[in-house]
Amino acid sequence: MFSLKEKLDAVFYPRSVVVIGASGDFSKVSGRPLKFLLNQGYKGNLYAINPRYKDINGIKCYPDLTSLPEVPDLAVIILPAPAVTRVIEEAAGFGLKAALIITSGFAEMGGEGRKLQEKIKEIARTTGIAVCGPNSAGIINASNGMAATISQVIEKKVFKSGNAAFITQSGAFGTFITALAQDMNIGFKYYVSTGNEVDVEMSDYIEYILEDPEIRVVAAYIEGLRNGKKFARIAERAAELGKAIVAIKVGRTERGAKAAQSHTASITGVDEIYDGIFKQKGVIRAEDERDLLDIISVFQNEPWPAGNGVGIITMSGGAGVLLTDSCYRNGLEVPELQPETIAELKGKLPPFSALENPVDITGQFLSDPDLLKYCILAMDRDKGIHSIVLFMGLILEKGKQVSQDITKLVKQISKPLYVVWIAGPEDAIADLRKSGVTVFTSPVSCVKAIATLFSHQQFVQETKEDKGKELLLASKKEECCREAKSNLLQKQGFLTEYAGKKILASYGISVPKGELAKSLTEALSVAREIGYPVCLKVQSPDIMHKTEAGVVRLNISDDDQLTKAYDDVIRNAVKYKPSAVIEGVIVEKMAEKGYEIIIGVLNDQDFGPVLMYGMGGIFIEVIKDVSYMLAPLTYRDAEKMISSTKAVKILKGARGGFVGDVDAIIDVLLKVSKLAYDFKDSLEEIDINPILVHEKGKGVTAVDCLFKLKVNS
Amino acid sequence: MFSLKEKLDAVFYPRSVVVIGASGDFSKVSGRPLKFLLNQGYKGNLYAINPRYKDINGIKCYPDLTSLPEVPDLAVIILPAPAVTRVIEEAAGFGLKAALIITSGFAEMGGEGRKLQEKIKEIARTTGIAVCGPNSAGIINASNGMAATISQVIEKKVFKSGNAAFITQSGAFGTFITALAQDMNIGFKYYVSTGNEVDVEMSDYIEYILEDPEIRVVAAYIEGLRNGKKFARIAERAAELGKAIVAIKVGRTERGAKAAQSHTASITGVDEIYDGIFKQKGVIRAEDERDLLDIISVFQNEPWPAGNGVGIITMSGGAGVLLTDSCYRNGLEVPELQPETIAELKGKLPPFSALENPVDITGQFLSDPDLLKYCILAMDRDKGIHSIVLFMGLILEKGKQVSQDITKLVKQISKPLYVVWIAGPEDAIADLRKSGVTVFTSPVSCVKAIATLFSHQQFVQETKEDKGKELLLASKKEECCREAKSNLLQKQGFLTEYAGKKILASYGISVPKGELAKSLTEALSVAREIGYPVCLKVQSPDIMHKTEAGVVRLNISDDDQLTKAYDDVIRNAVKYKPSAVIEGVIVEKMAEKGYEIIIGVLNDQDFGPVLMYGMGGIFIEVIKDVSYMLAPLTYRDAEKMISSTKAVKILKGARGGFVGDVDAIIDVLLKVSKLAYDFKDSLEEIDINPILVHEKGKGVTAVDCLFKLKVNS
Repeated sequence: MFSLKEKLDAVFYPRSVVVIGASGDFSKVSGRPLKFLLNQGYKGNLYAINPRYKDINGIKCYPDLTSLPEVPDLAVIILPAPAVTRVIEEAAGFGLKAALIITSGFAEMGGEGRKLQEKIKEIARTTGIAVCGPNSAGIINASNGMAATISQVIEKKVFKSGNAAFITQSGAFGTFITALAQDMNIGFKYYVSTGNEVDVEMSDYIEYILEDPEIRVVAAYIEGLRNGKKFARIAERAAELGKAIVAIKVGRTERGAKAAQSHTASITGVDEIYDGIFKQKGVIRAEDERDLLDIISVFQNEPWPAGNGVGIITMSGGAGVLLTDSCYRNGLEVPELQPETIAELKGKLPPFSALENPVDITGQFLSDPDLLKYCILAMDRDKGIHSIVLFMGLILEKGKQVSQDITKLVKQISKPLYVVWIAGPEDAIADLRKSGVTVFTSPVSCVKAIATLFSHQQFVQETKEDKGKELLLASKKEECCREAKSNLLQKQGFLTEYAGKKILASYGISVPKGELAKSLTEALSVAREIGYPVCLKVQSPDIMHKTEAGVVRLNISDDDQLTKAYDDVIRNAVKYKPSAVIEGVIVEKMAEKGYEIIIGVLNDQDFGPVLMYGMGGIFIEVIKDVSYMLAPLTYRDAEKMISSTKAVKILKGARGGFVGDVDAIIDVLLKVSKLAYDFKDSLEEIDINPILVHEKGKGVTAVDCLFKLKVNS
Repeated sequence: MFSLKEKLDAVFYPRSVVVIGASGDFSKVSGRPLKFLLNQGYKGNLYAINPRYKDINGIKCYPDLTSLPEVPDLAVIILPAPAVTRVIEEAAGFGLKAALIITSGFAEMGGEGRKLQEKIKEIARTTGIAVCGPNSAGIINASNGMAATISQVIEKKVFKSGNAAFITQSGAFGTFITALAQDMNIGFKYYVSTGNEVDVEMSDYIEYILEDPEIRVVAAYIEGLRNGKKFARIAERAAELGKAIVAIKVGRTERGAKAAQSHTASITGVDEIYDGIFKQKGVIRAEDERDLLDIISVFQNEPWPAGNGVGIITMSGGAGVLLTDSCYRNGLEVPELQPETIAELKGKLPPFSALENPVDITGQFLSDPDLLKYCILAMDRDKGIHSIVLFMGLILEKGKQVSQDITKLVKQISKPLYVVWIAGPEDAIADLRKSGVTVFTSPVSCVKAIATLFSHQQFVQETKEDKGKELLLASKKEECCREAKSNLLQKQGFLTEYAGKKILASYGISVPKGELAKSLTEALSVAREIGYPVCLKVQSPDIMHKTEAGVVRLNISDDDQLTKAYDDVIRNAVKYKPSAVIEGVIVEKMAEKGYEIIIGVLNDQDFGPVLMYGMGGIFIEVIKDVSYMLAPLTYRDAEKMISSTKAVKILKGARGGFVGDVDAIIDVLLKVSKLAYDFKDSLEEIDINPILVHEKGKGVTAVDCLFKLKVNS
């Protein structure tokens, strides 16, 4: 069997390609792959298989695979769907490493198509041939002319290569986005339409492409991920490499509506999970194709800004104000100029220009070209400024000249310069882009893109500094107490609170002192031992909602109260559900007061265990102030889960409250993360609700919990 | 003196125009107004004043105003700044109705320029001549060629007219935006660069233009408003007319940092006030120029959608998903097709197209043009659909043909159709726009614009239904008790809580029962009369922060406690501020428990009294969950102030709490609004904090209040 790398080498860097089912008529869709491979100058050996032709435009045609003079690396298949399975089988048998199926008519059609696709999946699995598609608009490697595609984005021009790549789950929309990118002089070295992903999927392509040292940024259009865990891992790899993944994620459907028992499950949608994991792993989420392309365009040109200070040079005061507003809204700054910069510019600006940031040069620079030079060079030397934004608009006569001037200046400076140019002329903008200058056609989108680049760099830096991840990954499974293991590995469905707390305790999570009592006598003895006040809670696998059932009593302060309460809760339990199996009653020390937080776990079918964190009460219920991240968490992840909620102000003592023990929350998040990761094969949901957060230094107490385990069918 | 209408008639519809200071060299900036008036075909009498020429391009030149054969309506002045004042004076004397000063070098330069501008202001005031500018890039009326401008947006083409207008406080940025609009085939009937607004200001232009029956939408670029109250009134007029004002508002500076005593003042920034008032009055706030133009383009073409159901026809499944996502995010729906529609389409769509919304027609429609027709006509008949979005992308060959097909179909249907067309070809898009079809170049921006249009229509409708505004405007001043009047009209600085509550009570706002006691004996007698439990609060104009000073005691339940508490608070008051004048001690019935809300008033220098509303505690302090509106409020305004906060869920009984008396909050908001409006000349700030909201039907109680009155200097 070949490795993924070998297989995808065969896809992106094939020494030879055979197109199976190529039409001799290049105006037909089935003629396109061969046409484009020729147009884009693919240099490897190129063959066609079509029994009806001898050759197509100089490419020799063979009747079948076995007649070929060599075993090609890649087969591009554009036969009708029913013919595909046989050909794939043959190709695998003949020793091909990879096949790209352009043909549609598979799972997306349902019925027979779905069956054909299953068959292909089986062939890929058993023979080890890599299968891309089916129903793919094709794959392009712009660096070697490997344009095995029907996408008309390369109909008229040579496809521009660069340091970006684009993987799309929509063929048509992907094509349009790619066309826009080409117009903006964004170079996609690789373009992949993933199709139905029968075998090679989104994350596989990204994984392969990220390792190309030339690539800085990978863009993706995602409707759904086959393998969320892998995607998350690859996102980590991108950060490790200092690269970026930018994705449009569409399809905001709700999570499969299983009867949600836990609070966590009931308030969580698919989109929240994606959002949380994207943030955790540094995947940049783009709102739409404009946003995507703007972000790629700041990433593709280096240098990148070393800080958040923006110097603005503008030919419109109004645009300067808008740019400044937008910087502050997006976490960037527009610092005052340094005294040396002011000294340097003094006397060089026209009388109406104030020596301030933004510098308003008005249209004056058109008759005084040195003005632009003075300002750009001065800002390049100003140590408070890390990137320069130059605003231009509607230059009727001298557009081309201005383009040239800017291009020259960009080469003389060491900081990134971004041009915002609205209302043309188009050719001047195109010239600028061709010479490698980053140009935006709207001020706010420029600022947003710079801010995204800057915060991604910060993310990469922080990730590097985030030590100890290995430690956190080490399993605790072996250390944890026997009871936890037997509960989590052998039981199914819901655990009682008592069983759940034992598990929490075995992971070092603080729970109130207490015991399970099987009789009033036992209850009284436990209460006396741990000391009043205590609470009572009936334990039954058949009663999940204890408060609702009336089987909880709090603040019991002596033997008499306990005796009465014990009677009450037992009676209520029997009344609530006569058939309920009652395991006993927890007698538990009342916990010290504290802020209520909730930590939840959802074992997502795509991503695996996802943690939810939030402050109880208004924050979760009314404003949905929660954060999500994938287990296992790093220390910094846990910190961010807390700091990204608005309620963090409360924990820090806003409104005269005490300062909560945030370190202890981090600790418990890490422990729950371990637990969830260790037992990811058994767990479905955990709700630890509430956890009381005490004063700084005094820890937290998990007061109630609900474990839902997978039911093996 | 002329009315504003007469003056602005002279500006926008002058029967004759004289350009003063026109250069004979049309390549110079000072040559442009005359050049553009000629180019754009201005039909009125046109004169120039320049002693150096006999005529300029066929326009007769005069040495001065008095030599002219008639009194022109409008003078366009492009003389150096120092020469302008004399000319304006002459023009006013000569009987001209209006002057437009293009020249810069006035207040924007400071110093001497500021003085010159003051002089012009004085001339305008005393003579009644309307002055536009100075430092204006000019004014255009595209319907009659009145292009008195230096803006090069009309250098090369005839300026397209239409049913939109654009008023800008930035000359250059305004020009660029106008150029973009022209490219998008958006017609600005009026274009105004307001310049320094020495006389005629932003709101004046909007007021005049709104009354033009042809105008549907007025766009504005705003850095600051000279007259916020007028702007608010004009926004109301726009809604009354069913028209829209769309504005970019930049310059997010903080409010002048007066020592903020009230809570309301301390948490409020300029931008929040603008945001609140824009929402209240239905002014649409655009984020940037793209957003502005997208919104104008949906407003300019009728019909407008009659509901929020969107039918999507797409040549890309991916784009369909993105459009659908975006609809739901923005309050629109993508309903399932009606059974009749499905029946109608059955057999007409290609086999791979599901009979659902979005309809994915793929590229197939290019070879089967009827496909488009079937889908569009079927959706036009579907009663769940109120607007149709058609997504197109990268059509290489048949772009022009597709444009024509769409244009034809648009004429056959009764619902609005919006085209999203990305990646060109440009000429096909331009054709579509020229034939009056609304085209967007990005899917999300299309959806946002439709959503904006739809919610503005709802706003207009609701405003129409919002009766009783007149009632609310009727002054209560005369009815209110003598004490309130004397306090609010004669005092300065802070009022004591006792005085404040009397005023609230006189406006019918419920405050706890209580009296001011001047001695312990009086206090005891008051307490016995109103009944325990009571609270005590020392009243002193010198002690604003009573809790901090320790002069408040709550929950006093009998004579003994009262005696002790009385002693305590008096002693604390003296200790806190030995010089404090103590007017007495409020003895007040303890209020029933309730949700805490805050109602505040800020008398903004630009807008007048602005109300703030929010729920106390976490909502205001931690998440800044507050709303702002201008007094006087209508009933619906008050409702919206409450419903637009997140905390409204609490008032409705979220989390098992009681249902609060929202009607009573509306009532108190209306009463505070009246009070603030009645005494807008005396008030600076009011803080009613907290107001306790009791159970539905049981009203509210204002527990504490702080009035800050203007200090007349």
